[in-house]
Amino acid sequence: MSDHPRPELSPADHAELALLLEVAATPKPGNVDRRRDHDDLRFEHFLTGAVGSRPGLERAAGNGPLGDAFERGVRGMSQQSGGNTQFGCLLLLVPLVRAAATDRLSPDGVAAVVSETTVDDAAAFYRAFEHVDVAVGDPPADAPALDVRRGADAVPTLRERGLTLEDVMARGADHDGNAAEWTSGFERTFAAADGVLDDEGPVTDRLARAFLELLAERPDTLVAVEHGEERAREVSRRAAEVRGNPDAAETLAEEFVDDGINPGTTADLTAATAFIVLERGVSL
Amino acid sequence: MSDHPRPELSPADHAELALLLEVAATPKPGNVDRRRDHDDLRFEHFLTGAVGSRPGLERAAGNGPLGDAFERGVRGMSQQSGGNTQFGCLLLLVPLVRAAATDRLSPDGVAAVVSETTVDDAAAFYRAFEHVDVAVGDPPADAPALDVRRGADAVPTLRERGLTLEDVMARGADHDGNAAEWTSGFERTFAAADGVLDDEGPVTDRLARAFLELLAERPDTLVAVEHGEERAREVSRRAAEVRGNPDAAETLAEEFVDDGINPGTTADLTAATAFIVLERGVSL
Repeated sequence: MSDHPRPELSPADHAELALLLEVAATPKPGNVDRRRDHDDLRFEHFLTGAVGSRPGLERAAGNGPLGDAFERGVRGMSQQSGGNTQFGCLLLLVPLVRAAATDRLSPDGVAAVVSETTVDDAAAFYRAFEHVDVAVGDPPADAPALDVRRGADAVPTLRERGLTLEDVMARGADHDGNAAEWTSGFERTFAAADGVLDDEGPVTDRLARAFLELLAERPDTLVAVEHGEERAREVSRRAAEVRGNPDAAETLAEEFVDDGINPGTTADLTAATAFIVLERGVSL
Repeated sequence: MSDHPRPELSPADHAELALLLEVAATPKPGNVDRRRDHDDLRFEHFLTGAVGSRPGLERAAGNGPLGDAFERGVRGMSQQSGGNTQFGCLLLLVPLVRAAATDRLSPDGVAAVVSETTVDDAAAFYRAFEHVDVAVGDPPADAPALDVRRGADAVPTLRERGLTLEDVMARGADHDGNAAEWTSGFERTFAAADGVLDDEGPVTDRLARAFLELLAERPDTLVAVEHGEERAREVSRRAAEVRGNPDAAETLAEEFVDDGINPGTTADLTAATAFIVLERGVSL
């Protein structure tokens, strides 16, 4: 785990590659992968989104505000007609890249990165929603002014309340899987990365297995937003049933795509997992 | 053709994306594509090679020596265990990126880029062969000292004879499809790009059709190196037969992979074609 077979590749390179490996990994039931497209959201949109994200990922590896890095990544990602390809992936990757670039890619290190976020970072996060349509749940009844769908219109409220990006994520942690990672030192992501490093075979196959483990472990919050919590729990039960059975996983992948079941938050976690294993020197 | 739906993407971005779209395009009989791997050379090696190539592509978009840009691209491409993924693609992309970055992406413009190459560029080209094993034909009997497999050892001979990279390519133009593009103003590449721009549907599907047209049009010089010229002509006849018949093209793809027939030079041309159509604003 301490060897580095790719000395030429930087954290920004690894983050971009993580986006590519995530979409290539198959089967990831319900998601676009190497074998499956959605009707209007295809594999090539993800390739384009990954390349377009790059300036944001490079900023994440630099010294500037983390929120700007995220917003720049999302803006570049959106230079294709498929829509939202990697918004959630970027939200997870940006603090991980910052942690890696500052030699603290560990749960404590990324928690420190999160704790350093500011109100300006929160404002940039809200602005990022103006670049692309993102499926999100209803805003909390006590704070309709902080609905992310309001984009930059929510910024005065953020400033008034002095909410940092960490604060915004903490507000979402109970119903959004990505926000939960932000506020837990990326607990599930680091655990999944350990699993991938202990696994064997082509890294895309390992990532597909990691996706199923993550989905089986906890209901996907995007599925919950789009289809309700009961359906999200059912999707996780189905994922648990097909672990270790590649043929059954392929069948489930067809079924979920046909039914419009898209465990996209779990795919986001898989991309973040890919980044960590690349930084840890997984062979490719 | 004059609209630019991706204002955020630079020539280096488009070149990297061209590498990704090329390997995603399927079926490309005999090559790794979205549906097929070779035994030790898999899809993820191409993804890694594309990301690793990037510093070279960025240099190609800059002002420095073109040969250095190529060598840097090849060195970065080689940070994966699959071996040679995109050496030929990079050889074609580097002058095209330079032409695009200097507002002369046309047959005359890229011919001007080629004519500006130096002996130093030729030396860097030879050095690039030290980073990865490349399948090449026998050296010309009159110049064994210029065998590319000699790598940097050939550089004194290059200097003695005052050979530029354009000169080196001219020596290979009769038996190497990529060298032929270098010395013809990228005639086949620009023609294929016009075909893709006139075609319809997802760009990866269009590129797969362009691959078959290119292969049908002229025998692949990598197939000729590996299996002889008669076999290369037969491969082109088979490609011609399956044009317009997706099912037959899929069957041919399985057959060529099983038989170790790899029309890799035609894949290189397809990547170069992808770059031109991206620069021309093809929608994605």
